[in-house]
Amino acid sequence: MAAGFLLVWFSFFTLLSSTVSVAEFAPKFPSSIIRPEQLLVSTKNQLYKTNYFTQTLDHFNFNPQSYQTFQQRYLINDTYWGGAEKNAPIFVYTGNEGNIEWFAQNTGFMFENAPHFKALLVFIEHRFYGKSMPFGGKKDVAYSNTSTLGYLSSTQALADYATLITDLKQNLTATDSPVVVFGGSYGGMLAAWFRLKYPHIAIGALASSSPILNFGNLTSPYSFNNIITRDYRSESESCYKVLKSSWQQIEDTAKQPGGLHLLRKSFRICKNYIDAGYLETWLYTAYVYTAMTDYPTPSNFLNPLPAYPVIQMCKAIDNPTTGNDTFAKLYGAANIYYNHSGTATCFNLNDNSDPHDLSGWGWQACTEMIMPTSGNNKESIFPASEWNYKARVTYCKNSFDIEPRPNWITSEFGGHDIHRVLKRFGSNIIFFNGLRDPWSGGGVLKSISKSIVAIVAKEGAHHVDLRFSSKEDPQWLKDVRKKEVKIITKWISQYYHDLAHF
Amino acid sequence: MAAGFLLVWFSFFTLLSSTVSVAEFAPKFPSSIIRPEQLLVSTKNQLYKTNYFTQTLDHFNFNPQSYQTFQQRYLINDTYWGGAEKNAPIFVYTGNEGNIEWFAQNTGFMFENAPHFKALLVFIEHRFYGKSMPFGGKKDVAYSNTSTLGYLSSTQALADYATLITDLKQNLTATDSPVVVFGGSYGGMLAAWFRLKYPHIAIGALASSSPILNFGNLTSPYSFNNIITRDYRSESESCYKVLKSSWQQIEDTAKQPGGLHLLRKSFRICKNYIDAGYLETWLYTAYVYTAMTDYPTPSNFLNPLPAYPVIQMCKAIDNPTTGNDTFAKLYGAANIYYNHSGTATCFNLNDNSDPHDLSGWGWQACTEMIMPTSGNNKESIFPASEWNYKARVTYCKNSFDIEPRPNWITSEFGGHDIHRVLKRFGSNIIFFNGLRDPWSGGGVLKSISKSIVAIVAKEGAHHVDLRFSSKEDPQWLKDVRKKEVKIITKWISQYYHDLAHF
Repeated sequence: MAAGFLLVWFSFFTLLSSTVSVAEFAPKFPSSIIRPEQLLVSTKNQLYKTNYFTQTLDHFNFNPQSYQTFQQRYLINDTYWGGAEKNAPIFVYTGNEGNIEWFAQNTGFMFENAPHFKALLVFIEHRFYGKSMPFGGKKDVAYSNTSTLGYLSSTQALADYATLITDLKQNLTATDSPVVVFGGSYGGMLAAWFRLKYPHIAIGALASSSPILNFGNLTSPYSFNNIITRDYRSESESCYKVLKSSWQQIEDTAKQPGGLHLLRKSFRICKNYIDAGYLETWLYTAYVYTAMTDYPTPSNFLNPLPAYPVIQMCKAIDNPTTGNDTFAKLYGAANIYYNHSGTATCFNLNDNSDPHDLSGWGWQACTEMIMPTSGNNKESIFPASEWNYKARVTYCKNSFDIEPRPNWITSEFGGHDIHRVLKRFGSNIIFFNGLRDPWSGGGVLKSISKSIVAIVAKEGAHHVDLRFSSKEDPQWLKDVRKKEVKIITKWISQYYHDLAHF
Repeated sequence: MAAGFLLVWFSFFTLLSSTVSVAEFAPKFPSSIIRPEQLLVSTKNQLYKTNYFTQTLDHFNFNPQSYQTFQQRYLINDTYWGGAEKNAPIFVYTGNEGNIEWFAQNTGFMFENAPHFKALLVFIEHRFYGKSMPFGGKKDVAYSNTSTLGYLSSTQALADYATLITDLKQNLTATDSPVVVFGGSYGGMLAAWFRLKYPHIAIGALASSSPILNFGNLTSPYSFNNIITRDYRSESESCYKVLKSSWQQIEDTAKQPGGLHLLRKSFRICKNYIDAGYLETWLYTAYVYTAMTDYPTPSNFLNPLPAYPVIQMCKAIDNPTTGNDTFAKLYGAANIYYNHSGTATCFNLNDNSDPHDLSGWGWQACTEMIMPTSGNNKESIFPASEWNYKARVTYCKNSFDIEPRPNWITSEFGGHDIHRVLKRFGSNIIFFNGLRDPWSGGGVLKSISKSIVAIVAKEGAHHVDLRFSSKEDPQWLKDVRKKEVKIITKWISQYYHDLAHF
């Protein structure tokens, strides 16, 4: 296989690789991805207002440079808030590795439940993403070297949330309003860790699709790709077989005279550089993200997709009109992910556009977020490969001149024997996982205690529970959300009881 | 009153003031303060062996300089350890603001209970104290400016403990051994916070005399001196009255011709600089530290002292042979604290010696440890004064060119509504407080939940429970220690139960 392929590591919404650049076709997103009926929950047809908070650069040391500040963006919606005088709740989204507007727009759960809870909604952007850029708000400066990027870390982000929420509550004279934190993916990890580290600030956390156990040796490095394999194989054995055998076929073709031309033609690749590695990465991306976002209704999170896109991909592959033409089958599958609108005339394998401002994850994956997900065993739908920590180290050395701290996350946040540790410590966390989500392998899939509970949806994909609801939602998804609302209701009523008694 | 007096702030074992330097008479300590019978618990007559761990300079950012390392000292005693194969417990002292040997030698509780628990004993030194000095182990470099001192913080210290313990357990193949953390004073705050922040590393914490609520507006700034007042007043009303009125008398005398000479003679002050402020600070120090270490048996923690030294001080003041001579009374009282051995021929008010390496606290008190304790109301045994945050800021600006972050500790560790917050979160913490200890006003004095419990001893002083036991110990102290052992036993047996079942 091409070396480039083997060295691709999946992060949540971006791709890291040591030899190929990010290969992602990014269709133009509409300026708002919110459907009209959803705007009903907004203030004067706006989902939120934008504010900024003056944030400390480094919370944990007192060097002169740590006193520098930056403007941290947060979005706020007080349409349904019951107010400070009623100690009405505050729902906070703990932003993850991208533009906070994107996450807010994809977290309909908070908007839709705000009226019931009379909740204030706050979405806080993670430092070094979107507009929350230290060093004068300039990304090129903030990302210029290790001395500036050094301040991009999960612990600093959590402390940002702690100080921002504390200050906001004081400004609103709402110090007794209960705060519940929400997050999906890395944002869900942050939500869970926030509840564990800052119980005095958040009374509970809904951590959706948060693979907090995907570190060290806690989760098999084959788990991620095993789940993707299972997703496709469960739709159709032939779909699985076509995909599994396709990689060798691509490589063989690429080596033949005229092979690259054939590949370019088969996949409608635009007239820029192509080789087997680029093409494979492009296809791999489509399969992985389609599995992650295998939602039961049409969606537009990473790319516009139909309902149940994995089924659609396998249908394209199993389409009888493609006969034995593997490339035609793969092209049909790729079209589901890259061209749902049908408007693309050719695909650009080298597209480096980053519409959601996700590029900081590369740094995080080279410092603390060492999540082994790139193993592929014999059964995998992808070529066999081993999780290769040394390759990560080399990549990080080359890309950032930095050495990862692979044990830091489990030292700081735990993970080993999590059931034993948290059975008698902590409370009020919901870990949601959908088992079709490749990240679910690193999630908490069993309830730990009465109030640290796992909700598992066999049919669910990556933080599907947090999305805006739809009339077409299946019953299991409605049930998941109902269960979550019920649990959060309990946290809040218990809080009010305690407020009256302590 | 002299401005210098009003601007003295108490830290745990050192004095901060904006106009006078540390005024503390430090008698020569014997090289070991352990009595011979206590050496029975040691290995070959040594209480511990000394090891070093290569520690990361900054855990929370990834700047190039944060990757620097330093040698962190820890003391270890495996005499009674049941061993890794039996998952025998590990007792860790979370070092505070001084030489770790000093704390180990004053934490007999751990040595005396190690055989019962078959525990390994580890005492970890706090960064920037003792021999645990970043920047090449050189104190003059580490303390040279804000860029180096900046790495001295409580959160970094806790992360040091987390990484050191994790590494030590791996090296001992003792990953399943339960860890219980112990600490007194600031070390007790660290122990409690460590259990709260790192429940995956410590199964429980004994936090002795840890004023985790002496921040922000959580505790009255008059509390500290009110307790000292109560201590002396409870012994004798006349003692209280003499002390209370003495300050004016000192100031009046100092202003008269020949007054300073009279003061020098009365207090046997050596032939160096004297003024009213210096003398008052010197006396204040004696009263405060005597109250803090008002132990029921002879001790040698800060200075050598008789049993119940507050009683002894009041006896000296009430001594009929001193008649109406206030200075003779005060001299007698000062002698209890500064000259229990009776060998001092004169006292040096300007003595800046620091036998326990405590000087780093000045930095901590100027960055995060903003603990309002310097208020004195009308009833106070000291002159009336208000807690003055602005004076602290000026002091810190002048001393270190640094601005405190007064809200950081409560943002990071909580404190507001601690009963409400921790009633349903966390477990396995003992908060011990002795009510004669001026710091007890900032402690947790009521149990929070079934397993976050307060043990309060009306007659107790600063972390008296952690000291070596003595045949002369009063029953209440024996009972306190018995209760602590019982609770820790329960934590450990519950852990073993969980280990077998999860």
